[in-house]
Amino acid sequence: MALALEWAARGMYITAPNPRIGCVIVRDGEVIGAGHTQPAGQAHAEVQALRDAQARGNDVRGATAYVTLEPCSHHGRTPPCSNALIQAGIKRVVAAMEDPNPLVAGRGLAQLEAAGIAVASGPMADQAYELNIGFFTRMRFGKPWVRLKTAASLDGATALDSGESQWITSPEARADGHAWRARAQAILTGIGTVKADDPQLTVRGIETPMQPRRVIVDSRLEIDTGACILQGAPCWIVAAQADTEKEAALRSAGHEVIMLPNGAGKVDLPKLMLELGRREINELHVEAGGKLNASLVREGCVDELLVYLAPSLIGPGQGMFALPPLAQLQDKLALRFHGVQQVGPDLRILARFNHSKG
Amino acid sequence: MALALEWAARGMYITAPNPRIGCVIVRDGEVIGAGHTQPAGQAHAEVQALRDAQARGNDVRGATAYVTLEPCSHHGRTPPCSNALIQAGIKRVVAAMEDPNPLVAGRGLAQLEAAGIAVASGPMADQAYELNIGFFTRMRFGKPWVRLKTAASLDGATALDSGESQWITSPEARADGHAWRARAQAILTGIGTVKADDPQLTVRGIETPMQPRRVIVDSRLEIDTGACILQGAPCWIVAAQADTEKEAALRSAGHEVIMLPNGAGKVDLPKLMLELGRREINELHVEAGGKLNASLVREGCVDELLVYLAPSLIGPGQGMFALPPLAQLQDKLALRFHGVQQVGPDLRILARFNHSKG
Repeated sequence: MALALEWAARGMYITAPNPRIGCVIVRDGEVIGAGHTQPAGQAHAEVQALRDAQARGNDVRGATAYVTLEPCSHHGRTPPCSNALIQAGIKRVVAAMEDPNPLVAGRGLAQLEAAGIAVASGPMADQAYELNIGFFTRMRFGKPWVRLKTAASLDGATALDSGESQWITSPEARADGHAWRARAQAILTGIGTVKADDPQLTVRGIETPMQPRRVIVDSRLEIDTGACILQGAPCWIVAAQADTEKEAALRSAGHEVIMLPNGAGKVDLPKLMLELGRREINELHVEAGGKLNASLVREGCVDELLVYLAPSLIGPGQGMFALPPLAQLQDKLALRFHGVQQVGPDLRILARFNHSKG
Repeated sequence: MALALEWAARGMYITAPNPRIGCVIVRDGEVIGAGHTQPAGQAHAEVQALRDAQARGNDVRGATAYVTLEPCSHHGRTPPCSNALIQAGIKRVVAAMEDPNPLVAGRGLAQLEAAGIAVASGPMADQAYELNIGFFTRMRFGKPWVRLKTAASLDGATALDSGESQWITSPEARADGHAWRARAQAILTGIGTVKADDPQLTVRGIETPMQPRRVIVDSRLEIDTGACILQGAPCWIVAAQADTEKEAALRSAGHEVIMLPNGAGKVDLPKLMLELGRREINELHVEAGGKLNASLVREGCVDELLVYLAPSLIGPGQGMFALPPLAQLQDKLALRFHGVQQVGPDLRILARFNHSKG
């Protein structure tokens, strides 16, 4: 199963909106075929592994298939994988976990069992879940897994009050941040960051065939059409107040304007998350300023924080989250640490909100 | 040597101002004696291990002694350990590291070698150094190893602006903090913390025969003689401005007042560190508020930060260090991460200043 997960990880940047699945076919303790999910509409991992075995002249009859997710049993963009495994004469299927997709949900394994195949599920379920946490979140809740990235000094400053922030963290941490961008299908920022830093928010330094979609929260459509972020691939600009002229200019430049007002003249952020889910965004990567960060966490839109802490003290400066003062300590926003690792000279901390279901 | 270090650690709370040393005597792959340094004036680790072997009826002639620090060769409070090892007929001595104490500094090993004993040093030197980082710092620089403890939310708040701070971190983190207090010979705080929190600053929940000395930085001698911290063992109160009446009251209650003005009406903090070194404080544990914390780090008095981060967001509140704003980012105070560990639900981060020699 560990090998199947390795194969799954090889599909990291290409399978979306489908999950990253790996499959390894084993007979007599020997791997005779392996594969991972191909881009949407092409072969799933099981079919890839069967084809690999065939191409290598291996007979899969009587073999065991280890797959990181229960094989699908429904006709989607491709025929069901359970059929392919049955027809190939596979004797046993071990899945890391059942598919939370309501269209599958145990039916894939049941169908295999009905065809006389021995089935099991469970080994390394946690790792299998983590690899596709965005896909599973979207299947269950109709919204992406939202990961908010920030970088600060050990005493919590993301920039001086002057705005100077280049660079608090190391090149290693910034490269690591690009790998996290790459695994997301969309990157979200706010008009404040666009105005202050004029970033591209593309993935650089990581080989990926797919750049994440850039999404800009810009309630009053203040974005300058000359902004760096608008010069490459089309963006989604999310607004709350109409501006016919600006909208036309953005659209003629290939961008999409999405109107999602919340009644207070701002973008309805929870509704935006559902809209991004509808658009098949599995993982959303947020890189924004303290104001949008704070709105997102206060409105319960964030599942996970990805915090890079530099080994330095800065003193007064801009904070990670421009939250209002608390009346009492028990009102604090509660998370749980999910992992911490040194990246170059910095620390990378993952923390999940207690409300998040990851 | 790993076993010798375990023995050394057993002396954690009792050997000061002497270092925590362990010694294991081995013959034919078998441990025939072991011991650690006793309280000052009593036996060192080598003598303890020799006595242990004797008590167990083991003959140490021809055996190897593993000791976590080069044996002393001078007459201090006790006779030199090198003599004891020679007289006992030990054949080989392996030291984790040479003694940085200028009174020893290689002479212990040289004396053993001159007596025909095979000597070696080096294995697990880093661990041996860490265990006695305070002692070595004092020997080399005449000042303690200064460890500043703070606890904050993930976004860097140590308390609400109202002062409410109980509790940001978990009972597990607070218990861990007491273990760090216990290994120090003194705990330093400021008058601000005494006024705001009225703490005892004693070690609780950890069995220790020695409570660290409490040291209070109180430039204008504002401390209330009824303060909790003054009710137990004698404290050292460090002031910059005389107040004959308050001094008399404090002294009659058994406390000591140390005058160390810096010319600006404040306590001369670097001089205080030297004074604490002179008083044989190996490790100094700081638990103070943002103002004293900031003064200490700005004046280069701190070697290491011990930061507990809770998995929560608080927003605006009191910071770890009340530093003045930086003109530019390159003026930030630079550290390096030394270790990070989860303690209960919280993270414990150790970071050392680049200027510190640990």
